[in-house]
Order: sequence, then C-alpha cells, then structure tokens
Amino acid sequence: MLIVGERINTSRKDINEAVEKRDAAFITADVQKQVKAGADYIDVNAGSRIGSELEDLNWLVEVVEAAVDVPLALDSPDPKALKAMARKVKKRPMINSTTAESNRFAAMKAIVQERECDVVALCMDDRGIPKTVEEALRNASFLMQNLTKLGIPIERIHLDPMIQPISVNKDNGILAFETIRNLRREFPGVRTICGLSNVSFGLPSRFLVNRLFMVLCIGAGLTGAIVDPLDQKIMTSILVSETLMGKDDFCLKFLKANRAGTLVG
Amino acid sequence: MLIVGERINTSRKDINEAVEKRDAAFITADVQKQVKAGADYIDVNAGSRIGSELEDLNWLVEVVEAAVDVPLALDSPDPKALKAMARKVKKRPMINSTTAESNRFAAMKAIVQERECDVVALCMDDRGIPKTVEEALRNASFLMQNLTKLGIPIERIHLDPMIQPISVNKDNGILAFETIRNLRREFPGVRTICGLSNVSFGLPSRFLVNRLFMVLCIGAGLTGAIVDPLDQKIMTSILVSETLMGKDDFCLKFLKANRAGTLVG
Repeated sequence: MLIVGERINTSRKDINEAVEKRDAAFITADVQKQVKAGADYIDVNAGSRIGSELEDLNWLVEVVEAAVDVPLALDSPDPKALKAMARKVKKRPMINSTTAESNRFAAMKAIVQERECDVVALCMDDRGIPKTVEEALRNASFLMQNLTKLGIPIERIHLDPMIQPISVNKDNGILAFETIRNLRREFPGVRTICGLSNVSFGLPSRFLVNRLFMVLCIGAGLTGAIVDPLDQKIMTSILVSETLMGKDDFCLKFLKANRAGTLVG
Repeated sequence: MLIVGERINTSRKDINEAVEKRDAAFITADVQKQVKAGADYIDVNAGSRIGSELEDLNWLVEVVEAAVDVPLALDSPDPKALKAMARKVKKRPMINSTTAESNRFAAMKAIVQERECDVVALCMDDRGIPKTVEEALRNASFLMQNLTKLGIPIERIHLDPMIQPISVNKDNGILAFETIRNLRREFPGVRTICGLSNVSFGLPSRFLVNRLFMVLCIGAGLTGAIVDPLDQKIMTSILVSETLMGKDDFCLKFLKANRAGTLVG
C-alpha cells in the first residue's frame, strides 16, 4: 500500500501558522514523524494561501526535501504552481492531480513532458464527476490512453475513482468499490488511490466511517491512500487489511507491528 | 445483516458455571442483553459438556425461550441432540450445522424432514475443508441441490465458506472473500454466514484481525455472522460497513446509533 502523508496542508491550522511564520523546525518535525509512521510520499498543499501559494510552496518544498528522503506529492489546483514545483524538486514527484478535463489535462501534459512524474489521475472529465462505474471507466480509459502516450509507465499512474458522500446517495460507497475493482481489472498494473474524507461528508463520527471505508476499498483492490500517517487507527486498519488480503508473507509485518506496540484498533 | 449471538456456549467459563448451577437468571440476563444489542438468533451450544449435553441443552433451550422472543440456533456436533432440540423449540430454529459429508448430511436430512428449519451449511465434504474456491463451490452446489430438494427455501440456507487461519496460509483471507463473492453470484438469494475466530488462529491481537476480517467479508457480500453482540466494536464495524455498502437508507440506522451513543470504534 502506497501511503501519501497528507498533513502538510495549509488548510490545517497548525501547518498554516508554521508556513506563515516560516517555522522550518515545525514542518521538519512533522514530516519526519510522517515518514517514520510509514509515509511513502509527503503531500504538500498550500492551496488555501491565495496570493502567496507559489512562494509558500517554494519554501515548503525546500524544508521538506531537507528533512526527509521520500519524494513529494505536489498538490495544487494551479497548474503553474505544479509546473514550477515539478521543476524544482530533487526526487521524481507525484503530481496531485490531473483529470480528463480538457484544460486540466493539457496543463498536466506540459508538466510531464518536462519531467518524469507519478500522476494522480481523477476519473472525471468536462461532464463532471462520474455517476456510474461506466462513466468512471470511460474517463479512466481516456486518461490511461493519453498518459501512456506521454510515456508514463502504467505503474506510475494512480487512478482516483472520485469518492462522493454516502449522505448524498447511499450507493456512493458501492460505486467507489465497484469502480476500484473494475479499474484494476480493465487496466492491469495500474495503481489506484483515493482520499477518504469525502465519503463521510455530512455525517457524524467521520473518522470511523472513513476508516472502514478504507478497509472496504482495500478489499476492492485499492493500492494507495492519501491519509494522515500519524492516525494510528487508520494505519493499523491498513496494515491488518493488507495482511488479510494476502499481502503480508507469513504475517511478518503484522507480527512486527504487534511487537512494536503500534497496532491500535 | 443477520446476527447470531454466540455467547451461550459452555466453552465460556461463566456460561458453563451457569449451566452447572442451573442459574436461569444469569442466562436470562445474558440473552436479553444479546437481543437488545441486535441478535436475531441466540446460538445455544453445550457441546463441551460431554455426557450431559442433551440434558443441559434441554434446560438451556427452555430458559432462553422463556427469556427472549427471537428464535434459537441449535449448535451441536451431535445429530441426536439437534433432532431432539429441533422437536422441542417453539420458533423455527436454525440448525448449526450440516456439511456435505455423507453421514452429517443424512442426519440433518432426518431433522429437516420433521421440522421447518433454517440451515447453516458448511461448504465441506468427505474430502475435507476446501482449499480452493472451486472446491467450496462444488460442495455448495451439492448442498444447494439437496437442501432445496428437501423443500428448504433458498433464503433459509446459510452457506458457510469455512474460514481457515491466515497464519497457516496468507491467502486464506482471499479464499474466504472470493468464496463468499462466488457463492452469492452462483446461488442468487442464498445467505452466507461465518464465524470469525478461525481466521486469526495462531496470531496475537485476534479481536482486531477478526473485526477487520468481518468488514472485508461484508464487502464481499456476507449476509450473516456468528458473533458476540455485546462486543460494541464488532457491532459498530458491522453497522458502519453495511451503511457503506448501501444497505442503510439515508444512513438512518447509522445516525440513530450515533445518537444513541452505541458507535464504538
């Protein structure tokens, strides 16, 4: 399971303050904890800092790269910011994200033509968020054809099924699970990834809903998640689910975590 | 989700003592709590009381039937005990269990010819526990053909995929999930059920493994579980998983449990 650590996001109050004050020690400590807890990528998002996003990202990327050895997931709604950061980072980054929307895809294309990247590709197009598995697959098909045409190897494409709240439609969970299952079947070798929080929008006890949603996504074949690696319950759920899905030879990772006392559930 | 409450089992120390002392108040209080927590059936098992099993079951069945309105799951390795109890109980019982083994199936046949029952049917035969999805389906096919021939409606047959420990083979989890998925596909309308504890045999943190296994089974389509309804974490996991699987209109059950403060996770 590929873990993208989501904490460095200026929509979080403490991170926003640290960015505001240029508190490198705070950011350093946070990302080192994320990596220790299992993050394979550090996601960096300053999208809430309108007007200073690019400058803030510049600073954040330098601090994070100095602090840890894992690559960065560059997370911005602004293609210009993504392009500048993709040029800047030392390790091959993950671009978070493109879609099959014409403008957004064109902007991402310009980035990946300059630099080798992993790409998070959301299965939506100009017609909006998919309402059926078929619509998601159609968008995925566009993305797969065009991203591989740009020379991106299949295993560096991370398809995101676009999670929608179950409070809006009770079948949005099943839509996600079936989409993940079908993406894996239709495009062998592709990766899948998603964030969790949308699914529980509008509901109480959101952490609980998000966590069990993650388990069910892993059961459907999800290979990556954008999560807070310091949330021990979610990390435990991921580890145990992977063990139950046959991904843990002789249950060694599970037994190691048990001995280390990091299993929480 | 059909919940079979598993607590009335003399392999539990407190239950064994209550049976030993004929402490009807203890059993009454326990089963009333199980029903309040959501049990649809009360499983009754005195199999550990060699020599007195039949006599003990006779007493237990009377106490449980006087205490609660839900039907009983009659749980014994001894066909004679099952037959006697099936005759005795007031409400249509669940027989726990038959297999496709010749002797065991013949004994169960004699019971269901006398009385309408729900039947838990383990997908194993004289060749042993299935090692592949195909073997499980072959056994299920025998059971479905022969149980429906006896006049049992499909929706009263509860196929059990026979859970085996992941500590023995890391793919035993996937075997269970794929078996459940295929049973539902091959035999539309049939129910599926399983106990949880086998999957974690030989591992530490068993409750955690069992609980997430249950969630993944629900994702594969499981419709029933033999569990301790007083385990709030497992009941929460079941409820939230069902909500995520689209089984909870407008998330009403989830919201009700949240208001009642019974969500624990």
